[in-house]
Formats: sequence, structure tokens, C-alpha cells
Amino acid sequence: MAVGPLAFVLVVAGILCAESKFVVYNTSAGIDPGKLNVHLVAHTHDDVGWLKTVDQYYVGSNNSIQGACVQNVLDSLWPALLADKNRKFIYVEQAFFQRWWRGQSETVQNIVRQLVNSGQLELINGGMCMHDEAVPHYIDMIDQTTLGHRFIKEEFGVTPRIGWQIDPFGHSAVQAYLLGAEAGFDSFFYGRIDYQDRAKRKDEKSLEVIWRGSKSLGSSAQIFAGAFPQNYEPPSGFYFEVNDDSPIVQDDITLFDYNVEERVNAFVAAAIAQANITRTNHVMWTMGTDFKYQYAHSWYRNMDKLIHYVNKDGRVNALYSTPSIYTDAKYAAKKAWPLKTGDFFPYADRANAYWTGYFTSRAALKRYVRIMSGYYLAARQLEFFRGRSDSGQNTDLLGDALAIAQHHDAVTGTEKQHVANDYAKRLAMGYSEAEAVVATSLACLVESTSYKECGNPSTKFEQCPLMNISYCPPAEADFSSGKTLVIVAYNSLGWKREDIIRIPVMTEDVSVHDSEGKEVTSQLIPITDTFLSFRSYHVMAYLGKTTTETPKYWLVFSASVPALGFSTFFISSAKATGANSAKSKVYTIERGQKSSVDIHQGNIKLTYSAEEGRIAYYADSKRFVEEHVEQSYSFYTSYNGTKEDPQASGAYIFRPNTTFPLKPEKKNPLTVMHGLVIDEVHQQINPWIYQITRLSKAKEHVEVEFMVGPIPIDDGFGKEVVTQISTSMKTNKTFYTDSNGRDFIERIRDYRTDWDLKVNQPAAGNYYPINLGIFFKDNEKEFSVLVDRSVGGSSLVDGQIELMLHRRLLHDDSRGVAEALNETVCVVICKGLIIQGKYYFRFDPLGEGAKWRRSFGQEIYSPLLLAFAEQDGDYWRNSRTTTFSGIDSSYTLPENVAILTLQELNDGKVLLRLAHLYEIEEDKDLSVMSSVELKSLFPGRKIGKVTEMSLSANQERTEMERKRLVWEVEGSKGNEGRILRGGPINPAELVVEIAPMEIRTFIVQFDLHQEVFDA
Amino acid sequence: MAVGPLAFVLVVAGILCAESKFVVYNTSAGIDPGKLNVHLVAHTHDDVGWLKTVDQYYVGSNNSIQGACVQNVLDSLWPALLADKNRKFIYVEQAFFQRWWRGQSETVQNIVRQLVNSGQLELINGGMCMHDEAVPHYIDMIDQTTLGHRFIKEEFGVTPRIGWQIDPFGHSAVQAYLLGAEAGFDSFFYGRIDYQDRAKRKDEKSLEVIWRGSKSLGSSAQIFAGAFPQNYEPPSGFYFEVNDDSPIVQDDITLFDYNVEERVNAFVAAAIAQANITRTNHVMWTMGTDFKYQYAHSWYRNMDKLIHYVNKDGRVNALYSTPSIYTDAKYAAKKAWPLKTGDFFPYADRANAYWTGYFTSRAALKRYVRIMSGYYLAARQLEFFRGRSDSGQNTDLLGDALAIAQHHDAVTGTEKQHVANDYAKRLAMGYSEAEAVVATSLACLVESTSYKECGNPSTKFEQCPLMNISYCPPAEADFSSGKTLVIVAYNSLGWKREDIIRIPVMTEDVSVHDSEGKEVTSQLIPITDTFLSFRSYHVMAYLGKTTTETPKYWLVFSASVPALGFSTFFISSAKATGANSAKSKVYTIERGQKSSVDIHQGNIKLTYSAEEGRIAYYADSKRFVEEHVEQSYSFYTSYNGTKEDPQASGAYIFRPNTTFPLKPEKKNPLTVMHGLVIDEVHQQINPWIYQITRLSKAKEHVEVEFMVGPIPIDDGFGKEVVTQISTSMKTNKTFYTDSNGRDFIERIRDYRTDWDLKVNQPAAGNYYPINLGIFFKDNEKEFSVLVDRSVGGSSLVDGQIELMLHRRLLHDDSRGVAEALNETVCVVICKGLIIQGKYYFRFDPLGEGAKWRRSFGQEIYSPLLLAFAEQDGDYWRNSRTTTFSGIDSSYTLPENVAILTLQELNDGKVLLRLAHLYEIEEDKDLSVMSSVELKSLFPGRKIGKVTEMSLSANQERTEMERKRLVWEVEGSKGNEGRILRGGPINPAELVVEIAPMEIRTFIVQFDLHQEVFDA
Repeated sequence: MAVGPLAFVLVVAGILCAESKFVVYNTSAGIDPGKLNVHLVAHTHDDVGWLKTVDQYYVGSNNSIQGACVQNVLDSLWPALLADKNRKFIYVEQAFFQRWWRGQSETVQNIVRQLVNSGQLELINGGMCMHDEAVPHYIDMIDQTTLGHRFIKEEFGVTPRIGWQIDPFGHSAVQAYLLGAEAGFDSFFYGRIDYQDRAKRKDEKSLEVIWRGSKSLGSSAQIFAGAFPQNYEPPSGFYFEVNDDSPIVQDDITLFDYNVEERVNAFVAAAIAQANITRTNHVMWTMGTDFKYQYAHSWYRNMDKLIHYVNKDGRVNALYSTPSIYTDAKYAAKKAWPLKTGDFFPYADRANAYWTGYFTSRAALKRYVRIMSGYYLAARQLEFFRGRSDSGQNTDLLGDALAIAQHHDAVTGTEKQHVANDYAKRLAMGYSEAEAVVATSLACLVESTSYKECGNPSTKFEQCPLMNISYCPPAEADFSSGKTLVIVAYNSLGWKREDIIRIPVMTEDVSVHDSEGKEVTSQLIPITDTFLSFRSYHVMAYLGKTTTETPKYWLVFSASVPALGFSTFFISSAKATGANSAKSKVYTIERGQKSSVDIHQGNIKLTYSAEEGRIAYYADSKRFVEEHVEQSYSFYTSYNGTKEDPQASGAYIFRPNTTFPLKPEKKNPLTVMHGLVIDEVHQQINPWIYQITRLSKAKEHVEVEFMVGPIPIDDGFGKEVVTQISTSMKTNKTFYTDSNGRDFIERIRDYRTDWDLKVNQPAAGNYYPINLGIFFKDNEKEFSVLVDRSVGGSSLVDGQIELMLHRRLLHDDSRGVAEALNETVCVVICKGLIIQGKYYFRFDPLGEGAKWRRSFGQEIYSPLLLAFAEQDGDYWRNSRTTTFSGIDSSYTLPENVAILTLQELNDGKVLLRLAHLYEIEEDKDLSVMSSVELKSLFPGRKIGKVTEMSLSANQERTEMERKRLVWEVEGSKGNEGRILRGGPINPAELVVEIAPMEIRTFIVQFDLHQEVFDA
Repeated sequence: MAVGPLAFVLVVAGILCAESKFVVYNTSAGIDPGKLNVHLVAHTHDDVGWLKTVDQYYVGSNNSIQGACVQNVLDSLWPALLADKNRKFIYVEQAFFQRWWRGQSETVQNIVRQLVNSGQLELINGGMCMHDEAVPHYIDMIDQTTLGHRFIKEEFGVTPRIGWQIDPFGHSAVQAYLLGAEAGFDSFFYGRIDYQDRAKRKDEKSLEVIWRGSKSLGSSAQIFAGAFPQNYEPPSGFYFEVNDDSPIVQDDITLFDYNVEERVNAFVAAAIAQANITRTNHVMWTMGTDFKYQYAHSWYRNMDKLIHYVNKDGRVNALYSTPSIYTDAKYAAKKAWPLKTGDFFPYADRANAYWTGYFTSRAALKRYVRIMSGYYLAARQLEFFRGRSDSGQNTDLLGDALAIAQHHDAVTGTEKQHVANDYAKRLAMGYSEAEAVVATSLACLVESTSYKECGNPSTKFEQCPLMNISYCPPAEADFSSGKTLVIVAYNSLGWKREDIIRIPVMTEDVSVHDSEGKEVTSQLIPITDTFLSFRSYHVMAYLGKTTTETPKYWLVFSASVPALGFSTFFISSAKATGANSAKSKVYTIERGQKSSVDIHQGNIKLTYSAEEGRIAYYADSKRFVEEHVEQSYSFYTSYNGTKEDPQASGAYIFRPNTTFPLKPEKKNPLTVMHGLVIDEVHQQINPWIYQITRLSKAKEHVEVEFMVGPIPIDDGFGKEVVTQISTSMKTNKTFYTDSNGRDFIERIRDYRTDWDLKVNQPAAGNYYPINLGIFFKDNEKEFSVLVDRSVGGSSLVDGQIELMLHRRLLHDDSRGVAEALNETVCVVICKGLIIQGKYYFRFDPLGEGAKWRRSFGQEIYSPLLLAFAEQDGDYWRNSRTTTFSGIDSSYTLPENVAILTLQELNDGKVLLRLAHLYEIEEDKDLSVMSSVELKSLFPGRKIGKVTEMSLSANQERTEMERKRLVWEVEGSKGNEGRILRGGPINPAELVVEIAPMEIRTFIVQFDLHQEVFDA
């Protein structure tokens, strides 16, 4: 007989006697004021692209990369919610939700509407994506949030109450005050703050605070803000996704492994542990994580049981909750909370792991997003001027692509390469449609006297999105045959503007005339061989074309363009017109040939040390500012990771190994191109860095254009290339960087406001995101650097600013993306990506730098939009509109106010956003209340009604203010001076007051029957 | 500007123009006679224990071992079926289904009833588990199928139509004809046949056949049987479980990666490939695999789309189907099909991968299951005699445990160790309850004159489940104080029986008397030291007890017990009674001391070669049979696998490396124990094999008891221990093994009936499962070996039989279990498991062996059930019933008929199964129609109604016959002689005819008011 089996002795008497049967769990618990309340917040975190594209995540394809299917989540969710009215869920990412919503039957839509109305399904955060907070521009953040919020409002009639930025890698002031409080949120939750900060906050029970992100708006834009104790996942052992290996609750006494007691004890222990670092008797458990709830029932089955048995046990009170319920409970506790100002950058999740690499990662994608952002703003203006089409081409696709690109694994550069390609493809497609809208709108405007009179215009405008590589077919026309190139330059800013236009041309036989027929001073700058080979490589790579004829010159000239309007310029053969563009004077200076070289345009003079091969001195004769300034390049070799210390530098994390200065190679001369419009100094710094320094009469600053790459990696090391601009200023460790291009925040090297910083990465740990610019000051001067995209930067040495321009890495940094950030461009073989870009710097007397930063910052964001057409003879000038302004021609916006949004909505109403550009105390003249005359903004229309809205335009501002929770702040910090805010609008006068840093959002309705120009 | 992104050139014009919206898929397709029909059969394969226990699989715990949760499957299934009435699903394993059913609300139960009634949810196969087909006994297969089928009938009123044995490792004749045709199935599908066989059948389009498993019942028990072309999974690329990486059908034109055309083409290609190896224009796709459909919707979402778009395409016709619909379509084609006889053993899935190891794996568990099986049969009889209790203790738990143990990863030994422990625990718990039922029933029977008169009997019977290690506390009493041990021996067979009773006693002062007070000849056999240390080790290991007093002797005596009844024996002090048990004459023969030693009991004489230390000659003086016979041990070293040829020997696969004969060690003598009842030869073959050869007067055969283990593994090799019994018979490669203990099937070494065998594993490839026995013959004699559990065996050399007794392995064989089969027993340290067991052999004149094999085979399966009580003096003999028969005492069952089932059902009716024990032409006297008088089986009761049922007792036999599909067989093979079958029962006479190999199943209802003994 058998001896093996455990056999007869293991009899557990009676264990199988009881009959299992259908059990109804009591899940009805609400808040119990006498107990510790554990708020179970069922959620899924659905990245709008990361390892897979947004569409792949949605439909659940490409699962070999990552098992994730949002369709499963939403398909399985509503039946699970229907099954028990106590169950709740929050859903966040509208890009997914909208995809899903479109595919549902009316029956399901009606069920979901009920679930939203009853609060079982709460749509929170509510933008298209959970945008990053370091690298997006605030306008993009507003736009993408508005897209989501307005959809939610239209479909469900509700407004999200909660900011839920649980995954972005650090948190910005603009997020807290602008996209939080100003968007009408009652609270804001997030997962990632510095590990040292978190430890201290856990000690002090200060993970939950009142966050005042804006110095200017103070308590009027503060928000209750909670950082999670660990991350946005459940406590260990409470994961209930299908196939997760947490112990499920086994409460069937007819089966083995019954574990209700053990599970209840584990639950209570985890709850108490969290209560020990949390104020009030409310703790939140984030029951979910990335792409979970693919079968929602598997979570609810276990949470039902936990609530039932934990409450039966009685030591703590467990309930289905949402962040709204949790926030209300915190509010009801009537406590005072610690105050938080500033932001949560940079973020490190452990020693030597500063997530500051992604401030620069995929610098090309970052620039592409920024260009599209400015274009989208302009295109919506032009779309409005012509009248929006819902069924035909419109700007929606670009808006959608831009919204998705703000995701915290999109513009951040922390996605896989194929996903980055997908974002770029979407932007390209969105651009393509917007480009057509722009072309048609401009055609309408040039063909009609009133911008409301336009059917199908005959003018075909071309645009040149590849102008950056000097590829612009319409400009490459042969003017000798008598043809004229018409350039319409549109200015989306609210002020008249002087700017430089720059197009490639084939010959020197060109002249420029304005709409009056007057010759415009122009200059021809030779296109260098370096640039031409750059051009041909990328035309082949991206268009698959071999370019035979190549342009020989950049034609540059100064242009003056009205506010929200355009001017027209005509390029034709010089021989035909008698005028001629002046060729630049070109000369090369061998290194050591002489000690210095000056270039000079307008008031600015820049002195080069010919010996060092670099900028040495800056002088502004108008502002009486002079300063030693040196500009140089260097690179960090990226830490590759070792077995003992595996943290490599990667897409997220900047972990330098050593740093190498790159001295300009002696053999390469300086080439100076001098002319009437522009001076340029060309310089091949080393085989893979080319730089042009540029001064122009129209612009009183230094423009530096760089081409960095392909970064060599054949030594087995990734490299992170930076530029340093050094002055002799005494800056006392202090510098200022912008928050999402909006407020400037003081940064102090090796120091944090909120805790006693332990420095372990002196470079990476002092990097901050830069969207607009960085500056510092001493007792006399300010030195400012403005950027053309988001980059990482710092002041690691007093008087010096450093910007990271490009990164090429060979290792993954173990934060999930599982790819080295090694971008290439391929023509037969693949070469490392070249980053081309610009930054701008200038010195100002102390207290006067803001004007340049704010005004020129607007110009960087909104460059002139150029459209090209061809004509024979003078027909155009005689029969077409050659100058135009969308606002009253006698009016201009105040210098301190910008139009952020001018957009026709699909209901015919217009969304208008006006933003004050200055913080309090930023500029002695401009940090004041300003005002805008709405009537002047809409010439030819009769404004029927103007409604002030919340920032995301999903509720009336008054309603939002009425509902706002008023939180108490600990200590005396609550007492601050009066906060400046624009007052209500007199409906007769329609003048909008606007205070420093205020953004005011309006829905404008026109009275169609009383238009001045009737269609 | 950015150069990196793919940017502007990737514009796919118009791809995003269309609006996605809710799509209703057309899933209504039925069969299209003009096209290739692809039957999508949605299914999950849920092992009733394997890597996890059955309960863990059900609730989804222990997911770190395997992500699997049957609750998810069934919870998510019904909503998915409700959502579209065209969707269908089959569910198989009732052990899971019943667990689930118990926990559902009435609402859900009603929905599921509707789904079953409408055919959307079809319950097929329908046993508690998908039993293995090699190692279970047919009675266990019937019992476990009956349990499931009757539940389905009671809850849903339906009878499963389809056999669905998709995973067992080879397929048996008994499965096909008995558990298939006789269970009322219309067809039978399976996944695993030899890879060479499969290749040929694909070539010949003969994967689908008419299978006649029984020589005796022929076409009356044939079935349409289909082997899958590959396995039971979907075609490659059509897996749709959550997170599977098959390409989902992406049909939303507003998203990227639209792939409808690609998916339709892949579908059509896979369908055509399968059609090319299949007859008729119907192919089946098994859409599912192990534990899939955890979120059923993810499969249906994709299948909906496939059906919709494939049918729109029109090249083939896709439909939701079930094996029933598929079978009906095959039937409707009115084709003749190839004939298949015999079985599909052994199974190899590739060269050198014969799944013949599991025939022996976990030999102790296999024995435990077999003991429980016999006990369950007896216990149900006794339960019936007393009257079943639904609420109190009954045999259901044992029935359930046994049912689950038949699973193809349970008794097979191919589960993880912790799961094997779980099966054993369940059996132990089931046994414990059944033991109480038996004790109470016997107490009732001994205390009352009528077996219907019993309340709470006072007699407390003990039983000795650990008798195998000589642990039997009641027998270890001290008789010197005048106490008497009462032994009630119950015989569950339908015939009076002579057998040997064997109990351990403490002293030689014992005597045995029968119920008449007559002394019974008995013999005392010393318990050897080897056995005592074996005993104490396992008492400590399994009971945690140190045994101080140890028994000194086995007391053996002959017992005669009536059919379905008991006899009583009394053991008392010899001094008190004057009688005395005779001590055995014990002598040891040193090896080489003399040339031979004889032992002799009854007609059998066995000669040992003292020099070789082994059996040498067998002589039967009654049957005039003599034969040289040698018995020996050897082991195969298990192949460990190499990098180039990784297939190791493992729990499933027998892959020997080399073979080593184990010569009996010279130093160990033969010890002969001779007496009036028994002769034994004890022999320590080597340090880890101990053997006893035994002859007894009552039994005319040789009994070999062995203890094998711990198998040494310190040389780094697993070992598989076999015994060989060699004769000089000329057997011409031919031998016979049973099919699940029922029919014998001819086996020819290195040969298969169905294809031209390519031999690559001469040992493993010739192994067959043995449940009852193995035999061969020459022109004069038959040689038969019967076993006490399922083992693997063969005749690898003419005249020789080999049985594999024990396996201890160090490597996994890569079929999923991921554990080496290395069983241990632990007392402080763990030692390799010792297998203790018996086999029996005998020679018979040609044509006469069946009687012994069949009759003694019944005795092995149903040993005497011993119950022990204690008494003082002669009270018992005077006041108690000491002999009993449950059937009319004047009646005995015919020698060729056995009672398989006598069980009171929970509705008070009685389930009776009668089985003819002989095949046609098996025995010249007994292979004939027999008959049983039902009235005599139920003395004291009035039979009200007898209804003949299908084998699994879920429908009336007449109804089953009426519905049976009549298939046509290719060629002339369909023409066979008349098949013998028992005729209908005359309700007045109630005599059951029963033809060779027939099993007839009845529900017997008694007329309660006309019982002869009225309670």
C-alpha cells in the first residue's frame, strides 16, 4: 500500500461541513467620524502613450511590449459599477475616454451618463492626458485641459473637481495654481516628490498642504494638495488585477485557504501605518496602477469583501470613495494645513537618481511640439477670421495631437522611439490639416474686403514647414522669368511687430518690395556647405528626394506686421525691378590671426576672442551695459551603471560621470558675414558642433544658433551636450527659471526651501526645467537667456548659465522605457540625430530685464507665419488685400497683455483668453493692472454676451468662485496683503481689467443680426 | 528647429477623416453549406488541480505560481453571453462549475439556466474533472462522470452530448466506448495522439474517425471521434486573452494600425490550411486554452469582429459554434468515416518524448486512490444498508475527493507536490467521514436483526487505515486480561469469498475463533526488524507519535465471508481459550548454502535458486503447469537532458539513459517463514529493496510484496525502478494490457496498428498503462501478472514482463509542472519515499487465465473491509449479528457479473450498476450472456420501479438509444456479426440479462409501504 500521501492524519474535522452559498457583501459604508477612515479610491493610470502608442494602448494591440488595453478597462467598468451602487471609480485620461465613448451604443452611453451623474464614475483631472509639468508650455497645458473639460461638460454636464497628476516627475507651481485652482479644482494629488522631501513630510505629517503656486495671485489661487506616502499603487499585498499575486480574500469556508482574518489584519495594519503619517482620521488608498482594471470585477470582488469584513471587524472603517469625497472629508475636519510655495522640482526618487535628464530628452520632439503650439494658436485665429468648419478641415486634429503630446511620456522624451514617432506623425497630420485651414483663411482674407465674405478662394498659399533645413520649394522659384513670389507674413501677437524674415533663394538676382511697392532693404547671406549637406541629408531622409538644385543664399529682410494681421512682401528679379538685395560681406578670420573680432548691429556689439575662438565681450550702447561674456560647449559622459551601482543616465535621469570641455578646434576659422540687416559669425566648433552667432538691427540681443550632432558614441559612452554662458557677475548661487513658461521661480544652488538638502549630484540635482528662460542678477545687471523649446538648465557656477542641448545615451535608466535614448536619422545607414536650435541672451540694467524676457518671449513662441504664393506682374498688389489686422486698426493690446486663445468653438461662440504677462513686482511699469477693450478686438462684430469662465472654460467663473473651498493655513502665513484681481466687466463698456499674472477666460457670443458687415 | 521627428512627410491623407462610432457586428452566421465553415468553439481548459490546487485555481489565489482564476472565467462569461445571443461557450469541469454555482445569486442562477437551455452555454464532458485515461480505474471514471452528469441533470435538466478529453496524455478504448458511447455522447474530441500517428492522419484526413473501443460491444458502442490537428488552442495569432499578444482586430478607421484585411486574410489562410487535412467543409477552431476567458469579453470582442468581417469577405463562413453543432454538421454530411479500434497509447509528442513515465509517477498516490476507490464502493453499500443521511455523515465527501483525484494531473502524478498533498488531504478527509459511515452502518448491522432498524448504535468500530505499516491500535490490545478483539470482515463482492486476514499482534498468546465459536487455523509470522523500523519511521512521520510497544507478529488466518456481507472473528488469549495460533517455522538460507529452496502451499510450489537468490521455478500441480520463472529488479537511470538534447525524464515522460540490473546482494540470506496458512520468503535484495514472496493455501498464485526506496540519488541521477518476471515462453512480441482495468488490448512490441512505427525509444515507446494486469501466452500457457494500482509496464523481451514500480527524478521534463518528481518523507530530515506494494502472478493453461485475472482482480480492487471492536467474554457472540449478507442468502451473483455500484441517491432511489466481467471469447464458459435476479439483490424490500439508465445515470437508456447518431464506417469494416446485448427487463420477473463487457445501470425505486420488514 501507499505510504507517501499525507493521508489520514491531516483530517481537519468539519472544515467542509458548512455549505457555501451566495453572499451579499455590505459595501455601503460611508465616513465614520469615530474611526480611521480608509478611502478606497479605485483607479487606473492610463498613459496616453509610453511603451505603446495611444491607439495601441486603447485597443490593446502590441501587447508583446506591454499587456495593456484601455478598452478592456472601460468595457468592464460600467457593468461592475452597475452591479453595486456603492462601488466607485475615477477616470482621468480623456484621450482614452473619448475614443471609448465614440464606440459605445446609446444604451451604454446612457448607463454611463447615469453613473457619472450619480457620482459612481467620477471624471477627474479631465484633460486629454495627464500632462507633464516640467516641459510643457502653460498654453499647451491650458489647451489640452480645456479640450477634455469641455467634452466632459458637453456630454455629462459636470466639471472635474480634482487635479490628479499622480505620475509626472515633479510638480510645477503653474500646475498647482493655474491648472489647479484656476481650473476650479478643489484639490490636487500627486505621486512624485523628492525622496528627501517625502521622508521629512512623512515625519512631519506634511504630505498634505495648502499650495500657493503663484506669488502674484497668492491665496486667491491656492489649492489643497496631497502627495502620496509612496506612489499611486495600493499598499503591498492589495493588488487585485487578474493574475496579480496578492492574496485574494478567500472567504468561502467550504474551500481551503480561508484567509479572512489574515486579510483583515493586513488591511488594518496598512491603514494604521498610513494614519501614522497623515493628519485627520482619513487616509486614501489608491487602488489601482498602470492600465489596471482590465477586468474591473476582479478588483471590486476583493474590495467588496475587504469593506465587508474590515467593517465587521470594526477597528477601522473602509469605504468606497473618490478623491472628491476624500477632499470633502479633509475639508470637513476644519484643520489648518501647512503652507507650500514654489514647486517640486527637481525630482529624485533616490540618491543619484535625479529626473532632470528628461528636461532635454528628445530635444527635437520638444522643439516640434513648441512650433506646433505657436502655429496652433495662430491657426485658430485665422480659422476664426474665416469662420470655423466642423465638417470640413479645421484645427481640431492639430489640437488633439498637441493635447496628446503634452502627456508625461510624450514631450518629456521618455517614450519608446516608435511612440515618439507616433506623436510626431499625429502632429504632422494635425499640422497638415491646420496648414490647409491657414492657407484658405489667408486666401479669403487677401481676396475679400471683409473677412466674413469668403467661399472658395482661388489663391493657393504654400507654407514651408521644412524651412529649418532651408527647404522651401516656393521660394526656390526662378524669378528671372518675371515671376514674383508673394510672401504673406501673419503676426498672431496683439501688437504690431518688427521682425526679420529669412528665406532661401537660388540666385543673387532678387529684390524685396513691400505692399506699397517700396523696396525693402534686404541682405543675401551665403548658405554654407555644411548647411547644404545637412539640407540634402534630411530632405532625403524625410522626403525621400534627392535635391539637385540647391539654394545659394538666405534672403533676409526686416518686416513690419500689424497686430493679429499680416503684411505682404514681394520677391522678384532684381534686374526687373532695378532694386537689388545686398550680398553680405564675408570674411574669415584664422584663429590667432588677430586677437579679436567685433560684430555690431544696432546698439549691440559683440566682441569675439579670435584666439580662443569664442565670444568675449558684450556691449549695449543704448542701455549702457557691458560685460565679459564667454560662451562654450562641453559634454557630460553619461554614467553607464555598474553591477554595484546600476543607476545609469537615461531618458528620465541625468546622471553624469565626468565632464569634458569642448574647446573650439584651432584649425577652424571664424567666418563673419556682415550686412545691412544682420551680422553672423559662423564657427565649426568641432566635427559635430556648428554655431552661428547673430546680431540684427531689429533685435537688440544675441541670437545663437547651434547644430549639435551626431554625438559620437564609438567610445562606448553616451554624452549629454551643454552650452555654458559665463559672465563675471556675482550671483550668489541664485538664479531664476520659469514655471512652464509663466512665473519665474527663484532657485538657489544646492539648496531647497522645504528641507535641508543632502547634495549627492551637484550637477543633476541643481538642474531645473526651462521653457521660456533663465536669468540671474547682481547689484547692477540682469543676464537673461531665452530658449526656443524646453531644456534643462542651471547655474552651477556663480555668473554662469548652463543649458543642456542634446543627449545621446547608450543605456536605459530602469524606469520602464527599456530603451536607450539614442535617436538617429537614416539614409541607408543611421546617423545620430542632429539638434538644431537657438537661444538668445542679453544683459539689462537691474530691474529692466523682464520687458525683454516677456515681450521677446512672446515672439519666440509666436513667430511670423509665412505663406507663399506666386504671381505674374502687379496684379496682386492692385487687387488683393495686402495688409490686414484682425483687431481694430486703431487699437493695440497693452504691452503687458497677450491673447492666449482666440478660437471659434463648434457652437459658434468664441473662446477668448487674455493673459497678463507680468508678475507682481516684476517690472516697475508693467506689473500693474491693465485693461483690454473687447469691442476693439472684434471690429465688424457686435458682441452679444461675454461670460467669464474658469480657466478651462467649463463653468462660469462666478459659479467656480462660489463653490471654492476656503482652506485654512497654519500659523500666520495665511495673512497676506490684498491680492490684485481684475473686477467684473461692465456689459456696456466691455473693458476687461487684468491684474499681474491673471489669465481671464471668456466665452464671447456675437449678435449675428447686428453685424456691421452683414454676409 | 527640430529635425528629428518623422514630421510632415508621413501625412496619411484622410485616414482620420471618418468618425468612429458604435458598430453592431453581425454574428448571426449559421452553417453555410456552400462554403468552408469555421466553427469557433469558445472554451477554457481548467485543470482540476495541477500547479495549484483545485481551490486555488477556483478562487485565483497562489497566482505567483500560475495566473489562473476560474471564478473570473465564469463571472465574466454570462454577461458576455447575455450581450449577444449568438455567442456560445462550452464549459467542461464540473468541480469548478459546482463551486461557482453554489456562490451565485438566484438571479444569476436563473440567467445561467436560460443560457444553458438556449444552448448558448453548453455543459459538455460533464464529469467533475477531465479524468486521465491511462491510470484511472474504470469504476472511478464512471463514478466521477456520474457525479457531474447527475448534477447537470438535476440543475439544468440537460445531458451532455460531447466527450471532450482534450488534454489527457493519450486516449483509452474504455474512454471511447464506455465513458463515450455508453455515457450517451454523440462524439468525442481529444488533443493528444502520437506525433507520428497525427502526421499520418493529417496526410490521410483521418484525424476524425469512428472509434470502436470495445471488441465485445462493437458498433453498438462506437463513437465519432476527432483528434485535433495540433492541440486544443486557437490557430497561431488568434489568442485573445487579456494581455495576449496576438494581433487584435483593429477595425476603427479613426485609429492607427487598422488591420481588418490582414486579420481576415490570416483567418482564411488558417482555415484553408485546416480544411486541407479535414474531411467535409467543416473545421473546428478551439478558441481558448488553459484557464482562459478570465475576462471573456476580450475574446468575444475579437471573435465578433472576425465573424463579421470574415463573412463580409465571403471566402469562408465563420460562426459561433459548439462541438455539438460541429458534430451535427459532420453527421449531416452523410459521409463514411475511417474506423479506429484499440486505443491511442502510448503517447509521444515528439521523438524521445514518450509520456509513459506518468503511468507510474507517484506510485503511492496511485495506490492511495485505488484503495479509496475500493473503500468507496464498499462504503456506499453499507451506507445503503443503513440508509443514507444527507445532513449527517455520508460518503459524498469521499466521492468528491475521488472524483477530483481522477483528474489528468492528479492520479497521474504530474502535479506539483503541494497539489499532490491536497489531493491526498481531500481523500483523507473523505475517508474519515466514510469511515464513520462504515462504522455506524456495521454497528447497526451487528446490533439489529433487520438492517433497517437502526438509530444510534452503541458499538464503536475502529478501522486500521495504516495497517499497511502494521499500525493498528485495536489489534495491539493485551488479550491476557481476558479481552477479546472482535473483527468484522465485510466483503463488498457479490460472491462468497475465501480470503486471508492479516493483523499485527503484540504477543504469541493469541487464538482465533469464528462466529460459531470454532477455532480458526491461524499462523504467527514474525514481523522483521526491517519492517518495524519502517513502521516506526512512518508512524512518526504521519502521526507524530513515537511507538514504544511494537507488534511482534502478523497473525494470519483464512476467512470465509458471504456476498455483500460480513463474518465475525474473535481474537483472544490462547491461554484462555486453550487454542493457540501456530508460530511460523522460520529458517534462513545463506546464499550458496544450497542450490534451491522450495516453498509450497496448496497446489503451488515455488522453487528459489539459493545461489542466484531468486525465484527459479513455478509448478501448479492442479493445473499441470510448470515453468521456469525468474524474477529480478533493475533500474533505468533517467536521462538528465543536455543543452543539445534537453528532453529529460520527468513526471510525464519516461526517458531512460541506461539500465542497470540489481542482482540480489550475496551477503543477504533468504529467510523462509513456513506455516499452516502461508509461506513467505523474505529477502533484502539490496539496501533499498526488500521483498517478500508469499504463497497461501487460499490463493493459488504467487504474491510478491516489495518495498522499494529510498532510491539513492547521490550519484546525481534519477532512477526508475522496475521488476522483471521472465519465463521461457515464446511470446512473439505479443502481450496484453488492460484498458482502465476493463478490456484487454493486444500489444505488439515495436509495432502500432495504425501506422508504421519509427522506433526511437525501445523501452519507453513500448510501455503501456496497467490497471488490472498484463499477460501473454504461448501455445500452451498463459502467464498473467496482476497489480494493486496503476503502473507502467511492458514485455520488452519475449517471455518477460516488466513493471515499473517507483520513480525518483532530479529533473523536470519541460511539460509545465516545473518540479522534479522527487518525493520524500520527513522526520527531521527528508528521505526518499519508499513504495510498498504487491503484485501477483500465475500461470494457467492456455485459455484459462481469464478466470483468475477477472475474479482475483475483483478481490484486489475490493479487499475485505476490516472493522475492530473489543468485548469482554462471549456477550457479542450471543447477542449480536455475527454473519450477514446484504443479498438474499440463497443467492449469489453469477461468477461473470459484478456489482459496480450499489448506492442510495439523495432522493432515496438506488443506483445499481451491474457489469459483465468478461469480453467475448475471453473465457469459454463465462464469455456468455448472464443474468441477475434483482429481487434477490434486495431482500426485505419491494422493488417499485426499475429504470435502465445511461452509464452516467443522467437519462433513460431508451431515450439515449433513440437519440444516438448512427454513423457510417468506410469500406466493409462496418459489417460485423450480431452484437450481444442484454434485453429489456420484464417488470414482473426483474431479471437482468447482461452480455459480455456490458455494464447496465439502473435506478431502482422501492415501494416503501410494502417492505417486508417494516420499520
